[in-house]
Amino acid sequence: MHDFYSDTQTRPTRAMREAALDVPLGDERHDADPPTMELCARVADMLGMEAALFLPSGTMCNEIAIAVHTRPGDEVICTRDSHIIFAESGGPAALSGVMMHPLDCERGMMTPEQVLDAVRPRSAHAPRSRLLVAEQTANLAGGAVWPVEQLNAVAEAARGAGLATHLDGARILNAQVATGVPAADYAKGFDSAWIAFTKGLGCPVGAVLAGSRDFVDKAWLLKRRWGGAMRQTGVLTAMCLYALDHHVERLAEDHALARAIGARLADLPGIARVLPVETNIVIADLADRVPEARDLARRLRARDVTVTVVGRRRLRIVTHLDVGPADADALVAALAAEAVPA
Amino acid sequence: MHDFYSDTQTRPTRAMREAALDVPLGDERHDADPPTMELCARVADMLGMEAALFLPSGTMCNEIAIAVHTRPGDEVICTRDSHIIFAESGGPAALSGVMMHPLDCERGMMTPEQVLDAVRPRSAHAPRSRLLVAEQTANLAGGAVWPVEQLNAVAEAARGAGLATHLDGARILNAQVATGVPAADYAKGFDSAWIAFTKGLGCPVGAVLAGSRDFVDKAWLLKRRWGGAMRQTGVLTAMCLYALDHHVERLAEDHALARAIGARLADLPGIARVLPVETNIVIADLADRVPEARDLARRLRARDVTVTVVGRRRLRIVTHLDVGPADADALVAALAAEAVPA
Amino acid sequence: MHDFYSDTQTRPTRAMREAALDVPLGDERHDADPPTMELCARVADMLGMEAALFLPSGTMCNEIAIAVHTRPGDEVICTRDSHIIFAESGGPAALSGVMMHPLDCERGMMTPEQVLDAVRPRSAHAPRSRLLVAEQTANLAGGAVWPVEQLNAVAEAARGAGLATHLDGARILNAQVATGVPAADYAKGFDSAWIAFTKGLGCPVGAVLAGSRDFVDKAWLLKRRWGGAMRQTGVLTAMCLYALDHHVERLAEDHALARAIGARLADLPGIARVLPVETNIVIADLADRVPEARDLARRLRARDVTVTVVGRRRLRIVTHLDVGPADADALVAALAAEAVPA
Amino acid sequence: MHDFYSDTQTRPTRAMREAALDVPLGDERHDADPPTMELCARVADMLGMEAALFLPSGTMCNEIAIAVHTRPGDEVICTRDSHIIFAESGGPAALSGVMMHPLDCERGMMTPEQVLDAVRPRSAHAPRSRLLVAEQTANLAGGAVWPVEQLNAVAEAARGAGLATHLDGARILNAQVATGVPAADYAKGFDSAWIAFTKGLGCPVGAVLAGSRDFVDKAWLLKRRWGGAMRQTGVLTAMCLYALDHHVERLAEDHALARAIGARLADLPGIARVLPVETNIVIADLADRVPEARDLARRLRARDVTVTVVGRRRLRIVTHLDVGPADADALVAALAAEAVPA
Repeated sequence: MHDFYSDTQTRPTRAMREAALDVPLGDERHDADPPTMELCARVADMLGMEAALFLPSGTMCNEIAIAVHTRPGDEVICTRDSHIIFAESGGPAALSGVMMHPLDCERGMMTPEQVLDAVRPRSAHAPRSRLLVAEQTANLAGGAVWPVEQLNAVAEAARGAGLATHLDGARILNAQVATGVPAADYAKGFDSAWIAFTKGLGCPVGAVLAGSRDFVDKAWLLKRRWGGAMRQTGVLTAMCLYALDHHVERLAEDHALARAIGARLADLPGIARVLPVETNIVIADLADRVPEARDLARRLRARDVTVTVVGRRRLRIVTHLDVGPADADALVAALAAEAVPA
Repeated sequence: MHDFYSDTQTRPTRAMREAALDVPLGDERHDADPPTMELCARVADMLGMEAALFLPSGTMCNEIAIAVHTRPGDEVICTRDSHIIFAESGGPAALSGVMMHPLDCERGMMTPEQVLDAVRPRSAHAPRSRLLVAEQTANLAGGAVWPVEQLNAVAEAARGAGLATHLDGARILNAQVATGVPAADYAKGFDSAWIAFTKGLGCPVGAVLAGSRDFVDKAWLLKRRWGGAMRQTGVLTAMCLYALDHHVERLAEDHALARAIGARLADLPGIARVLPVETNIVIADLADRVPEARDLARRLRARDVTVTVVGRRRLRIVTHLDVGPADADALVAALAAEAVPA
Repeated sequence: MHDFYSDTQTRPTRAMREAALDVPLGDERHDADPPTMELCARVADMLGMEAALFLPSGTMCNEIAIAVHTRPGDEVICTRDSHIIFAESGGPAALSGVMMHPLDCERGMMTPEQVLDAVRPRSAHAPRSRLLVAEQTANLAGGAVWPVEQLNAVAEAARGAGLATHLDGARILNAQVATGVPAADYAKGFDSAWIAFTKGLGCPVGAVLAGSRDFVDKAWLLKRRWGGAMRQTGVLTAMCLYALDHHVERLAEDHALARAIGARLADLPGIARVLPVETNIVIADLADRVPEARDLARRLRARDVTVTVVGRRRLRIVTHLDVGPADADALVAALAAEAVPA
Repeated sequence: MHDFYSDTQTRPTRAMREAALDVPLGDERHDADPPTMELCARVADMLGMEAALFLPSGTMCNEIAIAVHTRPGDEVICTRDSHIIFAESGGPAALSGVMMHPLDCERGMMTPEQVLDAVRPRSAHAPRSRLLVAEQTANLAGGAVWPVEQLNAVAEAARGAGLATHLDGARILNAQVATGVPAADYAKGFDSAWIAFTKGLGCPVGAVLAGSRDFVDKAWLLKRRWGGAMRQTGVLTAMCLYALDHHVERLAEDHALARAIGARLADLPGIARVLPVETNIVIADLADRVPEARDLARRLRARDVTVTVVGRRRLRIVTHLDVGPADADALVAALAAEAVPA
């Protein structure tokens, strides 16, 4: 299989697994698990936050942050293509009772003006604008990297308007590696932020959510209530620590491979357009008269190539630890064969 | 006071109040209140539905309908300027746990294509598209009237895609009077719809929500749970019956007055644009260098004229039972005096 | 019909309805309705609170108070037979997300010790004890009147343990009339309390919820969100003002009638026990081999007598404005005829 | 440390960790993780259910089951000492909006009669009785084992009354090992049941929730929404499989050790009473004039012995993989020294 479906499909390496073999363990709920405590401290530091907690998934990071920052009936401002809208099963409304206020943005990034326009004047009957959520990198915009000035300006505008701010940093290390700007600089001005370990970093399970000490205390209440509190999580977090040591810099290889794929796809007659490739995500729009994306993905699978359908005529291709140049060749060949205008 | 703030500001007439003086009463929760039963039957019939229930407000009509039609985590498709978004205190998310999926539409009306584009393919991680809500007339679009064909087509498209459909008919009788199309024709293809009695109809309290027998049974559970179940509601519904008999046709007078106001405002130098006036709502955009809407409304109030601020540079003026040509003169004079470019 | 089903079944008198005929009105949402403003001020004063708001029902009073005082996941301490448990359609959990912690109590009244035992020590995994709710009079305990010392002591104990306190005073005026203790003395130590106007006071619609200014501001948000905000509510509150002037002292008549009924029922062979009658509620347990309560109630209805079934072998009989000695005779005769041991 | 705080404190053995070293992995969300698929199949089979899903904690098992079986406003019948009440941070109300209806029971086990008495007749205003939850073994009753006949009878009574049934089987394998009755026999009559792997089985993370295919499909939606969906969970479930193969039968050793501790504690003058010891939990009530439990636990900790405080004068002691006879000696000695009547 040439698996470009997502960087979530990576399998832990043997070395990563061995990292969990002898590490001392304890109950994370009692702050007694050494690798988990170390990981939380390191991620808090990377993001410039006071504290952090380990969670079973990135979805739980986003959903807990929303729940801590808001009250039922409040409104959340984000881009229309946010992960919290299209990929968390309606969690923001179901778990926190919040109204979504999606903005249509260029490349998944709003401007400070858009944010300020979206903040409702306080009134007796309007929902209260309470939280801004941004996503670095912007997944459905093709792994686009927010310029640090724009991201900081948006956070500052939101705070100035009385909003809390949350950064979905699932792939923030891809941004850091692509630009050299440290993650903490991106997270400046945000009240909470998180990093996924199951994407480019190659771990099997986990994400770390960071914020102020008070934020993390409140997050722990929800972690317990929702069933995200585990026990000897060091068997997982030891692998995350390994990833921080060995799998961050190599994200540059994923980016180079994605750029190469993007360039080759742009030359195919069946591809109308490839979004600028900045990190490890390639988004390609199909040319007219090419089969629809859902159909095309099925045909690619028959050629042992998997991709994601992210629109009626739009495909997403993600590079990661488990794909290399040969897989890219297979992908391009399959697309050349199947994405043929009728 | 020349009160163009809203048609909700009407006071019941003496004759309307007298209608409640001698009417037989009983407990509405036991189906023992004759005026309430009669009102529900009449409104159900007007909307072409099987049954109906009386509620203390239009907000409760919308919020109960959303709760009945959805489950937490589902998604509701509507226009960005819907009453359920900007004026119900975040109720859809807080009470029903639903995600809002607002569309940007011409004159508050989406097309069937917009609806179909907004329906998400069923997936493991996306919220489920479950309900379409439309508003007849479209309040913030200037009391715009959906053409019956477009409204029916949108409902049909939504149903075809597996969605439930709800019609916010707060001012549907304004549409009926303006076009001659019966309310039931507008409500065709909708699973639920309602009429407000506190707006152009001039009653002090109440709205009636209609749907299938099963829908109304489920709505009653929420009416009880949320505290909307009352007792001898005939003291209110007798006035609503009076309004159906005496205050529907006269909505044409409100429409004529609104049109006249719209035409006169369009001639003022301080007004950049007036949206087409189809019913009893006039929406006017201020010219450049005129004071902002919030400031202007304050100045008008000092001249005993009230209007609504619905945007930074946008005013709303609503005609109703308690305003007439002399009030319109006062309004135009006040705007001529105050909406002066600096 | 001899209707002992509930004091909620009273119909407004002609004089009460006339009270609403000429009263000046305005929009309650803008604090512009004179009777509603006067009523809220009077009830706040009667309960010793800073402010109050008018609501369509007592259920909404309880449910809003719970929502204001708690956060999701908190725990509410009350008696097992509380109205908020058995008669509000699961509202506390559905609307506020709170855990119920019901206590088994003598005559619907807990002791301060019971409250303190029920408060959970703060912990990482237990729900947080947050609110105490008491009911004066205690409906399912037979309209029992909390002694003022016990009620005050319970409120004080709860507050000492960090809990908010809410008093369901649906029938608190029955207690006041029965004992001469002012309602405000009962409400001392409670953060919120309310009075129903649709019970012994004989109004068709409404209840008033009182608390601090801050509490009432927060309650207004929920009143709007849940659809309890109405418009010219003076048509209802003028009747409530009439009731305060004319229907409070006469509750003594209801109490005398209830006592007389209780005494006569106690002599019937089909009645095993009558709870002490302190106000306007009589609760009677059926003797062995008498038909079950549900069956018996049906037979009474065939004799034009209605009562409430409140247990497999338990009936409730309520006196009010619309029943008198002749109705009591009919009730006793019907029970004598039907509640016959097999 | 002699850690009798809980069987959740066990650390995975070296052999258990090695079981995760070479196992093939995939994304559990795509049914592509072999150990997770095998584990779910085995647990479903052990519990006599059609299907199962892996979750990060037992709390999530309970909370998802409640959410699937109920709708907001429904009522859940369980014992007052249930884990879902005292130890899940108010999750049932916060996540599912359900009312708790706790019963006071002997040894944590209700009778069928209690269940039937607790089921409310359907009515317009009462919450709907919808779910029965039982706990095998009953934790706070001292690890008491429901006789299979009683457990089946309770499930049958609940189902006969129209309720769904859920079995919190966190320690059901302790019951199986103690009595020889297969877990599936206990789970008969339940719509869902689960097993914890982080307690006596000694795994670091995880629990498996089983039910019908339809139940598991619905549970997956919530698993995703709440952030319990992970990726290559085989690194955890391979350890669970190891535990099923190597750590079930040995629970008998924990039981023997607990019985021995119980017998020795019963002889101490500072212990008033020890609940019957049936599995791996010892619950001991302190004699008069012995320091309160909270204080005593602190003193024991100073002697390197940890226990749980489960009441003002009640301690819980749990045996597991990581404690043996020497630890028991230390525990008894510490208690003999500290639990001294003043």
